[in-house]
This record gives sequence, C-alpha cells and structure tokens, in this order.
Amino acid sequence: MPQKGIITLPKSVGIISAAAVGGAEEESGPLGDRLDVTDVGGDDKFGMETWEAAEGEMQKRALTTSIAKALLTEHDIDAVFAGDLQNQCVGSNYGLLDFDIPYFGLYGACSTCAEALILAAVYASELGTSLTAAVASSHNCAAERQFRYPVEYGGQRAPTSQWTVTGAGAFILSADEKNAPQIVDFLPGRSIDRGINDLNNMGAAMAPAAIDTLKRYLDESGRSPSSFDLILTGDLGAEGTRILRDFLPDVAVVHNDCGLLIYDVDGTDKHGGGSGCGCSATVLASTILPRMGLPTRTANGERPLRDILFMATGALMSPASVWQGNNIPGICHLVHIKSPDSWEADA
Amino acid sequence: MPQKGIITLPKSVGIISAAAVGGAEEESGPLGDRLDVTDVGGDDKFGMETWEAAEGEMQKRALTTSIAKALLTEHDIDAVFAGDLQNQCVGSNYGLLDFDIPYFGLYGACSTCAEALILAAVYASELGTSLTAAVASSHNCAAERQFRYPVEYGGQRAPTSQWTVTGAGAFILSADEKNAPQIVDFLPGRSIDRGINDLNNMGAAMAPAAIDTLKRYLDESGRSPSSFDLILTGDLGAEGTRILRDFLPDVAVVHNDCGLLIYDVDGTDKHGGGSGCGCSATVLASTILPRMGLPTRTANGERPLRDILFMATGALMSPASVWQGNNIPGICHLVHIKSPDSWEADA
Repeated sequence: MPQKGIITLPKSVGIISAAAVGGAEEESGPLGDRLDVTDVGGDDKFGMETWEAAEGEMQKRALTTSIAKALLTEHDIDAVFAGDLQNQCVGSNYGLLDFDIPYFGLYGACSTCAEALILAAVYASELGTSLTAAVASSHNCAAERQFRYPVEYGGQRAPTSQWTVTGAGAFILSADEKNAPQIVDFLPGRSIDRGINDLNNMGAAMAPAAIDTLKRYLDESGRSPSSFDLILTGDLGAEGTRILRDFLPDVAVVHNDCGLLIYDVDGTDKHGGGSGCGCSATVLASTILPRMGLPTRTANGERPLRDILFMATGALMSPASVWQGNNIPGICHLVHIKSPDSWEADA
Repeated sequence: MPQKGIITLPKSVGIISAAAVGGAEEESGPLGDRLDVTDVGGDDKFGMETWEAAEGEMQKRALTTSIAKALLTEHDIDAVFAGDLQNQCVGSNYGLLDFDIPYFGLYGACSTCAEALILAAVYASELGTSLTAAVASSHNCAAERQFRYPVEYGGQRAPTSQWTVTGAGAFILSADEKNAPQIVDFLPGRSIDRGINDLNNMGAAMAPAAIDTLKRYLDESGRSPSSFDLILTGDLGAEGTRILRDFLPDVAVVHNDCGLLIYDVDGTDKHGGGSGCGCSATVLASTILPRMGLPTRTANGERPLRDILFMATGALMSPASVWQGNNIPGICHLVHIKSPDSWEADA
C-alpha cells in the first residue's frame, strides 16, 4: 500500500548532539549567546578567503563541534547527509571533504535541515548503523551574490525580503540512544506551486507547502495544533507566517518561525526575518533541542518542550529558472520530535 | 559499531521497472534503439522553450514511462529521489513538480543515479513503503552553458573533455518484488580529492574516488573482480578508465564505463566519452537491467548479467569553486545488483 502519509520510524532515533555556528549578525541577535561557534574575526569569513569557502568552514566546524559534544570521533559516524544553497552544493562538498565519512549530498533548498534529519534518521534506524549526521548551512554574502546582488552593490531590499542567515547546524543521530530528543515520525513534503514568482517574497512561495504538509499531518494524526508544545517552521518569515496563520488559524497559538526568532527584526534591515538552510538548522540546534533535553551550557529556566513539529520549508527555484519565466515551487518536510520519556526538565 | 563498509539491505529491493529518455546524439549512438523516449522534434528541446526546461521534461517523461511500464500510477509511488546538474537542481524540481509524490532532492553530481538508487532502496526496504522511484538526468546544452560555454560559442574542446549526455533515467523500486533485478548491498562513497583542478578532465578527478570505493568493496567482500559479470562505472570516460585500470589492473577484464558505451567515440567530437547524471542513468536503464531479467522489448540474444557492480562517479565542484582555486573532489557510490534467482536467461 502507498505510504504517502506520516511515516513512523520502526525504531525512534535520538538526536544525541547538536551544534550551531553563526556569523556576526547572528551573534548579535537574540540567540547569539547560544551559538557554539562564531567568527572570531567578525567579518564572517571564518579565516577563509571567500564567502563560499567560509560557508564550507562553518559546516566543518559545526560537524566537528557536534561530534565533539557527543564525545565521539569522526570515525564513529557512519554517514553524513548534508546540503546548502550554493550552486552544486559546494558549501557541503568542500566543507565536509576532510571527514572520512560516507557522504550523501542533498538539495532541498531551505528545507535541507529537515530533509537531512529525515534521511539520516531512516538510515540510522534501519540499517544497523548506529550513528549518522545531518548538516545544513547558508551564508548571507555567498547567497546574496549568487541569488540577487553582491552585498557591495547595496541593492535596495523589498519589505518582504528575508535575510539569508550566515550559519550552519549539525546533528548527530543514534537509533540506540533513548535518553535524548527522539525523532519518532515524519511526513516528507510534496512540491507545491501556487504561482508565486517574486524572488523577493520567498515566504509567500513556501507558505503553501507548509500549509499542505501541516494540514495533511494534522488530518492524518487526528491531533489539534494545541496538543503540540511548538509547531516550528523554518523560514517562512513575517509574510509566510501571516499566510500560514490565515489558512490555519488554530496554529497561531503554538506556531513560531525560526526566521522570526533569530534576529531582532524591528528597526533593522532584516525585514521579513531570517532565511536560508542555516536559519532553521541553527535555531533548532542552539535553542530548541536544549529545551527538549539535549545537554547544553546555556538553556535553563525556559519552558520545556516535550512534543514539537519541526517543519523546514524550501523554495525550489534558481535565479535562471525564474528569469526564464517559471514560478517558485515550495516544499516542506516535517519532523516530529519528542523529548525523552526519562527527561526531568528543571524549569 | 561504525558501518562504513558494505551495507547489506535487511531485505533486498527489486528494480521492477526502468525507463531511459535520450536526445538526438544519444538516439544516433550505439544504444539509441533501446531508449524508451526520444525527442520527436530532434532539437533536444522536447517541446519546451529552454534547454533547462527540456531537462525537466525528460525527467517527467522518464518517470512517467517507468511508472507505466510497471503498470502502476503515480499514486502508487511513496517517494521519489532525484537530482541533476543544474544550479539548485531545477531540472528535477520543475520536472517532477506535477507528480503527487513526496520528493527528496539530491545533489551527487554525476553520481546521482547511484545515490538515488541507494536512498530509494533503503527507504523502500525499511519503512514499510513498498514503492519508491529514483531519477537522474543531464542535458548537454544546459550543462555546457552553465559549466563551460554556451554551445553556440563553439568553444574548442580538449582531448580529455567528455560530452554531457542529454538523457534521463528513472527506476521503480519495490522491496516486495523478488522476480526482478535485486539491489542486495551497497557501499556509499567518501569525497576524495587528489589535486585535480582541470575542468576539462573530469575523468581524472573522479577516478580516485572510483578506485577508493571499488578497492574497499573488493577488500571487504573478499571477491575478485572476475567473480562479477560486470563492473560498470558511470562516466569515467577514456581518461578516467585508463587511470582506474592502471591502479586496479585485475578489473579490466570485467570493467566497462557508461561513458564509453553510449556514443561511438572514434571519429566524433565526443572525445573522452559521455558524462553527466544522465549517462549512467540511461545506460543502466536501457541496456544493463534488461540483461539482468528486467522485461524489455529490445534485449535478446545478449550475454545475461547475473551479478554486477554499478558505480556512478561524481565531480563535486562548481565553476565558481574552481575559479576560486579549489581542486575538484570526486565521489563514487557503489550499488551491487543481482538478477533474480528465478530468472532463466534465454540467451
């Protein structure tokens, strides 16, 4: 029988470690003190010569840190699933080149973090492999000059524009660790095209996919939005969030968006909020999972999260495809994460 | 324990259907009469306005044809794993947009066909899902203007240059079908960088990865190359094939390369042979699997293949990454395919 609906992992998979790397804008934002690694030089180059290489370096440091936090070495990791926004995914290709780990390259645009978590969980859950990694990143300056204008050009940004996050998140997964936040089931996304073709309004392009995935999940599971502690979208931003809540008003009470969490939007030029593969990856790693029982040095006193839906959204376009007259389809992969049964939150 | 070696699927997965779509050059080549779909217009546009859209159209027709040959509908397919060479993988994104199938986008460069087969097999084998699809494509004119020069420019091609295949291959996988060629185990690739930085010599960039993967497979399995009916690399071409056979001379007797099979290289401007995600995908779908028991209208009288290694290789670079001074790392994913036990070849 077709299994297009919610897929329950035969064996739930623990997220035993997570790490977040961010740039200067992210460090000075509301989540800045939760980042594991920031750029000492402060120029978002992370010691590299180009923005593109800096993105690879962020992936390298994120994966290295997540492995270290789990008290492992790279030799313990059976496979890494990774992606980014650069043409031919060279952020991941070069960033992870030095690791002696089998490598599966992904392209899910800004949904990559959820896509990587799903495939890393399936692989870990099922193949007798015990440890896999998921990595996703974006870099503001690399993305701007590839998708829009070089930052030096100073192009005017539209009110619906979002700010591509300079950041990388990495996660270590194990099917054998129950004392960690658990990926219990997931719902992979379908491509959805609702006719949006404005390169400066990715939130509107991705919101229909988020609505499609979330509505299918709620319908099939029979659960109400308020039965979750948090429904977290990746980077719908202000515009996409408005659209989501217009179509699914019940969601508002438990919904938040990584793009709205990572920056102080008001009064800055972040406009619609954060975006990019690195947006959802860094917020999940730095801020959400520590509230679900993942050991951390920063989170305490915050409301614990026991049951969340993590929904990273992606816009499946290229600049050339839009110039050629295509719309911008969206996709949204959903990951259902629960805190471990044994966890006693000290909030 | 780490499982970086050969991974045996708990339940082998049948390739129940395959389809190959090709352009004019491919149609006039030695495998032309085995293609399921070619371009009636003869201009490789497949009725579309751009090369890029034509690639998407090839993916659509390949998946449609593979579903039809399996006597299924799109509603029967639980997930599709797909990728291509275009920036942000828009060949797959747009080509598969109309299908109501959960979509996992991949980027493995020219190794994508093997990467997709592995992940589609893992997903089908393990999650109670019965049917998944793998799709990969490339288009000569879209690739040339993105990676090198627009074809109208008439740039001189180096002797080691390969010819990006205009083609798409699609495969339908089922864990419940034993009367079809079976994916029994696989070995995912690691990124390997041996210092090659010549954009006109992808074979040399990818050969070290093929050598690494194949050597690890032979060492761990304890099998000799000659115990296989065929060791088939994806697109090493003439140069990469020479390097592979230099390092692993025992392989030569059973080795072939999709890039050397798809065109009559001698006396044409194909130089090093075919390349691109579509190269290995179309050759495997059109020519190899029919010799392993997959029903077909064309193959008969050929030597049956009972036990093969399919090794698609990819070069994990972008034009920008090479201009910025990076080398070209390679990767090679290996898939071990056996004909069904019940199959009585009528050769």
